Amino acid sequence: MKATIIGLGLIGGSLALDLKKRGFASRITGVEINRENGETALRRELVDELVSPEEGVKKGDLIIVAVPADAAINLLPAILSDSEGKTVVDMCSVKERIAIRLKDHINRREYVASHPMAGTEFSGPEAAFSGLFDGKTTIICDKNLSGKESLDVVKRMYSVLKMKIIYMDSSDHDIHAAFVSHISHISSFVLALTVLEKEKDEKRIFEMASGGFESTVRLAKSSAEMWVPVFDQNRENIRVVLRTYINKLNEFERLITEGQSDGLLSAIREANKIREILKDKLNITRL
Amino acid sequence: MKATIIGLGLIGGSLALDLKKRGFASRITGVEINRENGETALRRELVDELVSPEEGVKKGDLIIVAVPADAAINLLPAILSDSEGKTVVDMCSVKERIAIRLKDHINRREYVASHPMAGTEFSGPEAAFSGLFDGKTTIICDKNLSGKESLDVVKRMYSVLKMKIIYMDSSDHDIHAAFVSHISHISSFVLALTVLEKEKDEKRIFEMASGGFESTVRLAKSSAEMWVPVFDQNRENIRVVLRTYINKLNEFERLITEGQSDGLLSAIREANKIREILKDKLNITRL
Repeated sequence: MKATIIGLGLIGGSLALDLKKRGFASRITGVEINRENGETALRRELVDELVSPEEGVKKGDLIIVAVPADAAINLLPAILSDSEGKTVVDMCSVKERIAIRLKDHINRREYVASHPMAGTEFSGPEAAFSGLFDGKTTIICDKNLSGKESLDVVKRMYSVLKMKIIYMDSSDHDIHAAFVSHISHISSFVLALTVLEKEKDEKRIFEMASGGFESTVRLAKSSAEMWVPVFDQNRENIRVVLRTYINKLNEFERLITEGQSDGLLSAIREANKIREILKDKLNITRL
Repeated sequence: MKATIIGLGLIGGSLALDLKKRGFASRITGVEINRENGETALRRELVDELVSPEEGVKKGDLIIVAVPADAAINLLPAILSDSEGKTVVDMCSVKERIAIRLKDHINRREYVASHPMAGTEFSGPEAAFSGLFDGKTTIICDKNLSGKESLDVVKRMYSVLKMKIIYMDSSDHDIHAAFVSHISHISSFVLALTVLEKEKDEKRIFEMASGGFESTVRLAKSSAEMWVPVFDQNRENIRVVLRTYINKLNEFERLITEGQSDGLLSAIREANKIREILKDKLNITRL
């Protein structure tokens, strides 16, 4: 199978590595509008060649779109128009707007909507590595709208990437993603902003930063270019989660202000339940 | 040197392991009011014996207080009264209230206020391990109020634990701790509560949880018994940080709602500056 990967960042680059190495793709054609990233991808031998988007779509049996959500929503209709008899799959972390855009596309059945839940706080082809997807979960959305052949190709790809596939409609996907992924990024970005602002008059503030702080602000290193379009396309769901989060922070503040130790103890013990959930989740991931 | 450790949790237990193993203490006496934790500490041979608090203070040259902040503030005056010629050090993550409580104590110079920035999201003697403190930072507060001999003992102890010591007054400590530690815990506790609440009607919500979510909610596993007294004793500083955090979240929400992509891009790029700071910090820690 010949694969074309459009967008050679962390995701596209890591896909390229493992799809080639594990024999899924005999040839990988890359498309990358950022010249420096393209050169890095060639130097690291992530792809066999770099071509224009049009050429890329022609050359691949499978077209993998691994660009930020704003570029993806604009590119996908045109790519799909040129993809008769091929399979097109995207990797975006937000799905419903794209689903609506492609709903009535003549080649809709050649498109598979997917979202691999894998990544790091780094981006670009330099950050790509083999094994990024191993053991993680990927979501395939609205599978009934994809043709059997295309769905089979994508399922096979994710099986080669050692991912566990779950199925969901794109609207549910976006609600869930807002809760378990998008809000984590916002809480982390804003935490970083809060402490960075304080640093302006308290230079020593980071001397005390330890593992706990590092863990909660890790996601604040994430790429603006990737995340702004996600926040834009998942605006409604994110607002709901963010309102809930802010309300609960206000409530937590009230408990602290009023010295309500019992209320704080129960709230924290309730939050502690995340332990068991993460433990179960970890077990699932390790299977 | 004979050391007595009051409180055999993650911190007290890990101290016990390395102070003995590295030859700083020839004998370690333990004090633990929780019977089960006491038994675990004996079984794991963290301590040579378990005694009452009064007996423990008598037996040690160095008395290490490693209990939650509410117990510490109540115990310290009495311990210090019985500690003439000895050294007393505490490990609390909040320092000013204790400083005020001990300010006029007749044995104030035998007390050293410290806060090792080390820990995990786990607690209790079962979670204790050798090397917990290695390469991390510890803070000694109000060092001019401690006598030279006591200060030297504590500095030597932290050097055996391979910690980098920084000095600060207790009031600054509490402001800094609110920004780089206490708020991280609150943002994490509340994030867990937000998602756990959603799980009540969306059972599948955690299927999509990945490394990013895990990282931001890691601290939500932390012990309620340890954290409620910290929030209580550092209330004023925490409120300031929490207000800033909530205001910035509201502002971030406004940018999303209004579709202000440029504003979001700048905010995230500003937040990204945390990368360099954590990298520098990591280098410091590794020295």
